[in-house]
Amino acid sequence: MIQSFNSSLLENAVNELSKLPGIGRKTALRLALHMLRRDENEAIALGESIIEMRKNICYCQRCHNISEEAICPICNDSRRDSSTVCVVENVKDVITIESTRQHSGLYHVLGGVISPLDGVSPADLEIDSLVKRVSDENLREVILALSPTMEGDTTNFYIFRKLSDLPVRVTMLARGLSIGNELEYTDELTLGKSIQNRVLFADTFQHNK
Amino acid sequence: MIQSFNSSLLENAVNELSKLPGIGRKTALRLALHMLRRDENEAIALGESIIEMRKNICYCQRCHNISEEAICPICNDSRRDSSTVCVVENVKDVITIESTRQHSGLYHVLGGVISPLDGVSPADLEIDSLVKRVSDENLREVILALSPTMEGDTTNFYIFRKLSDLPVRVTMLARGLSIGNELEYTDELTLGKSIQNRVLFADTFQHNK
Repeated sequence: MIQSFNSSLLENAVNELSKLPGIGRKTALRLALHMLRRDENEAIALGESIIEMRKNICYCQRCHNISEEAICPICNDSRRDSSTVCVVENVKDVITIESTRQHSGLYHVLGGVISPLDGVSPADLEIDSLVKRVSDENLREVILALSPTMEGDTTNFYIFRKLSDLPVRVTMLARGLSIGNELEYTDELTLGKSIQNRVLFADTFQHNK
Repeated sequence: MIQSFNSSLLENAVNELSKLPGIGRKTALRLALHMLRRDENEAIALGESIIEMRKNICYCQRCHNISEEAICPICNDSRRDSSTVCVVENVKDVITIESTRQHSGLYHVLGGVISPLDGVSPADLEIDSLVKRVSDENLREVILALSPTMEGDTTNFYIFRKLSDLPVRVTMLARGLSIGNELEYTDELTLGKSIQNRVLFADTFQHNK
């Protein structure tokens, strides 16, 4: 065990760094010593960027994505299709889906998925606010983009039922073969689903045009 | 690739975090989003601890260990044996050796080891200042505690030659079996060395008393 740092400032920085996920005390010490070796401005820029970010980023009141204003740039973007909302688990998924450039609508960040084992119930998530949005904003389509896991599917189904009385189209992401993967290494469940959900070849051709 | 963060503050923090060694952009984003989820004070404490540490930690003028004063607490500690100096590669090695509680003397941090491939020559290291210390401070013993690698051994030998005209005892860390390791998994070189350098059993018994 690392015991004595001979500097309370170093010890303090190591303590704070090791609170981050996946960073133990050994890594924290390595990072701190790296900062001490590098230019002073570099460490100050890092420290300030963390403080600035944490102080000024809040959550969008409409979609619960991170934002620097009450309403985020995506919700405020008039070029986007405000009648289609993609439901995601967390902020990172917004960034991931944005990077595909295939979704031109808005988002709704749930803040998690239903998981009784982890003590996450529907009331902990932004599901009621989604139902309210569907009515208030007269949404045409809700795209469920949760992970294809048991928890994701449970949440998908729960939302689907909550929205079943409303005149909105509820869709979910397609499941099938990963592009670039060899057929023989695809798991049986996914392969089975991809046979069940096979699509007209002519249709895929049209999507790509 | 992650492209759009929808927040320049988040982007900035991710950029700064990903400059740290071993932290790529994906990990940096994960860390930043973690900070956004946790209490604001936690992120501010982290940022401030980094800035405080970098602004106020300097290097000890005597041993080149990190310090908050011109002379570090180890050099200033009158209970330590100031006639014995342990030569280490970097600040981390001081912490490691201190944690063994087996060295009661002072330190001398070289700032690296001689490594022509990495462009590190003796002039880049605190070797001249070590030679000066040996004369000026009338040292009785210099313990070479560099890693048992080619670079470490080269540096050991270079320092040994530099000190050969001075009336100082130059020792180095013992090499042999790692405590707790099975004999059959010890590499041949180490095992060979440990046979050459075998010690009187009665002596080890005395060390442990």
